[in-house]
Amino acid sequence: MRILGIDPGIATVGFGIVDSEKNKLSLVNYGVITTPAKTSLSSRLDRIYDDMTELCKAFSPDAIACEELFFNTNITTGISVAHGRGVLLLAGYKMGVQIFEYTPLQVKQAVVGYGRAEKRQVIYMVKNLLNMKSEPKPDDAADALAIAICHARSATSLIKKNGGDSPCSTT
Amino acid sequence: MRILGIDPGIATVGFGIVDSEKNKLSLVNYGVITTPAKTSLSSRLDRIYDDMTELCKAFSPDAIACEELFFNTNITTGISVAHGRGVLLLAGYKMGVQIFEYTPLQVKQAVVGYGRAEKRQVIYMVKNLLNMKSEPKPDDAADALAIAICHARSATSLIKKNGGDSPCSTT
Repeated sequence: MRILGIDPGIATVGFGIVDSEKNKLSLVNYGVITTPAKTSLSSRLDRIYDDMTELCKAFSPDAIACEELFFNTNITTGISVAHGRGVLLLAGYKMGVQIFEYTPLQVKQAVVGYGRAEKRQVIYMVKNLLNMKSEPKPDDAADALAIAICHARSATSLIKKNGGDSPCSTT
Repeated sequence: MRILGIDPGIATVGFGIVDSEKNKLSLVNYGVITTPAKTSLSSRLDRIYDDMTELCKAFSPDAIACEELFFNTNITTGISVAHGRGVLLLAGYKMGVQIFEYTPLQVKQAVVGYGRAEKRQVIYMVKNLLNMKSEPKPDDAADALAIAICHARSATSLIKKNGGDSPCSTT
């Protein structure tokens, strides 16, 4: 199963692609989609949509795992990121890829084993689980890989439990 | 100039189409895009995107006027509506239509002449300004018509002031 993990945003969208076969994880690719700060919101959304579509075409993921949004402090940032997340989900849906959502707590729990883990611990575990020589950069790409790993582990454990049912509610 | 006003949402998106020629406003069409509550977020976004694209194809607007989002109370609703607004802006951009944004205060100021006007006053003025026999329903469609009228009036006044410059910052 090939998983495309997505850390949503407007200025920077992290992506991380991981293959998961029989509990074995392997890194395929990772990086970020970036949009220029001084362009209009619409044109930034357009760039994000087109790049996400290209990622799906180039890597043919079986599933997309996207982080859910929680904002307690900066609602302006939250609204802005949600615009980007909307077009990311749309692009995945239009490409016919099944989409799954995970909270930051679920991602940390799956990758580190502790829902309140620090960002550095998450990145350290991503590096080790994917046998990478150095820590993945930038942080948005590392987060996206963590989300992909979270889906791989959730899918595996729930398939075991449920005998093949879908791993979690889809969006 | 034909203006497509949009009141963004996830369950219900209001739209209102108005022609504005030499300070004269005329109603073209209005209504709502609705998405079923029990379907996934991605499929609702897909419906909104496709319907918005169809609206642009069917009515060939010269401009899209979309309400800006402000949420002080319910951030969960705000995040959800922003997903929808993202795909609405994307659809307009992909169709090559210029997009303008207005705050609720700007809309009320332009339609009623008072930024803190009640919703009933806005609907009453929309009905009168567009020579409608009865008040437009539902409220989301009435709001969308108000946003279109706001753009018509802002565009006219700023073209007068600036000698033809674009009426406000685009998104």
